[in-house]
Amino acid sequence: MKKIVKHDQDVIKQHNKLMILDIIKKQRPISRAEITKITGMSATSIGRFVSELCEEGVIRETELTSSGVGRKAIMLDIEPGAIYTIGVDIEKKRINFGIMDFSETVIVYHRIDYQSQKANPEETAELICREIRGLIDREGIPYEKVIGVGVGVPGVIDYENGIVQLSTTFGWKGVAFADLIERELRIKTVIDNDLKVKILSEYLYGSAKGSNKTALIGIGTGIGSALIINGEVFRGGSNSAGELGHTTLDPNGNLCECGKRGCLQTYVDENSLILEARRVADISDVRQVFAAARNNERWAKEIVSRTALYIGITINNIVCMYNPDTVILSGELVENYREIVDLVEQHSEQVIWEPFKGKFKVIPSELRGDAIVMGAGALAMQHFAPLAGSWA
Amino acid sequence: MKKIVKHDQDVIKQHNKLMILDIIKKQRPISRAEITKITGMSATSIGRFVSELCEEGVIRETELTSSGVGRKAIMLDIEPGAIYTIGVDIEKKRINFGIMDFSETVIVYHRIDYQSQKANPEETAELICREIRGLIDREGIPYEKVIGVGVGVPGVIDYENGIVQLSTTFGWKGVAFADLIERELRIKTVIDNDLKVKILSEYLYGSAKGSNKTALIGIGTGIGSALIINGEVFRGGSNSAGELGHTTLDPNGNLCECGKRGCLQTYVDENSLILEARRVADISDVRQVFAAARNNERWAKEIVSRTALYIGITINNIVCMYNPDTVILSGELVENYREIVDLVEQHSEQVIWEPFKGKFKVIPSELRGDAIVMGAGALAMQHFAPLAGSWA
Repeated sequence: MKKIVKHDQDVIKQHNKLMILDIIKKQRPISRAEITKITGMSATSIGRFVSELCEEGVIRETELTSSGVGRKAIMLDIEPGAIYTIGVDIEKKRINFGIMDFSETVIVYHRIDYQSQKANPEETAELICREIRGLIDREGIPYEKVIGVGVGVPGVIDYENGIVQLSTTFGWKGVAFADLIERELRIKTVIDNDLKVKILSEYLYGSAKGSNKTALIGIGTGIGSALIINGEVFRGGSNSAGELGHTTLDPNGNLCECGKRGCLQTYVDENSLILEARRVADISDVRQVFAAARNNERWAKEIVSRTALYIGITINNIVCMYNPDTVILSGELVENYREIVDLVEQHSEQVIWEPFKGKFKVIPSELRGDAIVMGAGALAMQHFAPLAGSWA
Repeated sequence: MKKIVKHDQDVIKQHNKLMILDIIKKQRPISRAEITKITGMSATSIGRFVSELCEEGVIRETELTSSGVGRKAIMLDIEPGAIYTIGVDIEKKRINFGIMDFSETVIVYHRIDYQSQKANPEETAELICREIRGLIDREGIPYEKVIGVGVGVPGVIDYENGIVQLSTTFGWKGVAFADLIERELRIKTVIDNDLKVKILSEYLYGSAKGSNKTALIGIGTGIGSALIINGEVFRGGSNSAGELGHTTLDPNGNLCECGKRGCLQTYVDENSLILEARRVADISDVRQVFAAARNNERWAKEIVSRTALYIGITINNIVCMYNPDTVILSGELVENYREIVDLVEQHSEQVIWEPFKGKFKVIPSELRGDAIVMGAGALAMQHFAPLAGSWA
């Protein structure tokens, strides 16, 4: 049953004001006249709301030559410096940071090397807080204008409670990570699974812009997926939808670190390539496998081809389950070795179920390495922008 | 961007009236006073709307002893005979029908034997129309009160356009089936994939009631799945999400009717059991396999156990991808042979990924054979009830 909407005057006013802010944010720069036209509200009302928003420092007037008649027109734009968020992307071997302003532009990136695998969560959180403080300082941003921190973490994340339930990448289990950062910085913090952050980012700023049903496959250390439908990240019952890596292919197959046999990730991630390669060569890095394949070494070509086959199967399985219109291939393995993407295409004819052929497109990630920082900043913006709760 | 809501008087009135109808439908019987309390609207307004709804014949007054004080109170209930829908479930060997009234009760069921596999779609539609006409006639329902027909069809269904894109069960491809029925009966018709209809039914009336993220696995001739999230059937980009049967397990595995190798359905549906059994025995029906297993014949026990293992894997894969809180096991194979469900449970420890253990429950279908007729009736109700568009 729908909730009863009380058509209370103040509520309507607030609703209209936020709607106008939303219009300005999405169509900036825009004139008062255009807003009047879009909303159907009176010019007087629009004028009043706009004045209020200007006074609050959320929007500003800019002068622009309008394209139509050549006259100068006063246009409205949001004030990018009204508020900021911090986006954080914890990877296995480094941590990436970015400061996002109210216009959702990342105004500065920052990157540090860090062996997250060897550190405990408290130390990692401490380091992140120190780096964020330094970054805000260096940029000369008033601390109170930073309204939120967003963090992308590989693993099973309890997003509502800010808990890393399980991150095999870092060896963390049941860590209240959002709290660690929030308490130290006194800035509200939200954490989410890295691929869910990534797909949000691709949807808002990257290759999934304008697509309504996009799946993303991330292949690097491990393999995972995410789905966004009409702008909403698909979370499932406890934010763990998309854990592709532990879907079972073969009950008698390769042993997985999770203790099961035949998990997809044992056929397709970087580790599985290296393990396979070690049967015949002294290999410590996936780069060596691809170098050998480029050098026409038969064993390496076989490994790369088999990996491509399994990536194709992964695409088929994702498409069968989620029926997206777009599949984004992302992650180090496909971003660094484009030849594997070509091979995936060659396998497609064989591995994609007939009724789905031609019904979706496979595209590479557009934002690549910056996607998670941007998405984490956006996530914090969605959660903590002062008015967000009302206009969401 | 949110659409601009014009707070037009008539729109608000209509909205409130439908809200009241919705409250009566969901909480019937209910008094005017209770509706006043729930909505916060004035008793006068409620009185006026209720009178209008009574005049339109959509609701009626009933006299009931209220539980509180023992005085007789006038209660409001919907008028079950206000409108009707027809639910149709086309199976391989029979067609099931039901008439659903406005209270969403199926007032009569009807069943005919029919080899849908051997019939073309036009003949099938003709037969369905003939049976529906006879059914309405026999029940003495005014024809104009039947506002919609819903049909559940196994296969890939273009639900928005009423087209059976592919039904391997019936051998139909690109059939505008809704149109065939609608033109003949002159009653609006909606068709949908059988498992999507089934999960809607289990959500509204059966074992998924009150669950917000439920997956359903259907195992019989073929295997498929469906998902419902917060009351919305998950459709994907073109209503084909959940096509579990053609997810690939093994690129070198069993040949599937679709031309690919290693599709899940070649390991787990009735056909795969029979084919496997024929290696060692002269078997034509899955019943014989289970009879032999109950008779302790080793080959049969092995087949049943292997099938249970693959059902367990299917559950794991569904849970990894959709992260539901509930998984409904349905379809002839699990409904008719409960011993296989016990075996699935035994395999669970081995096949479910650790982080998901204890996070979801596996339950049998509650509505079983009636689910699709009920769901198809409900689907037609949701689509075609005169006011539905407004209060949906």
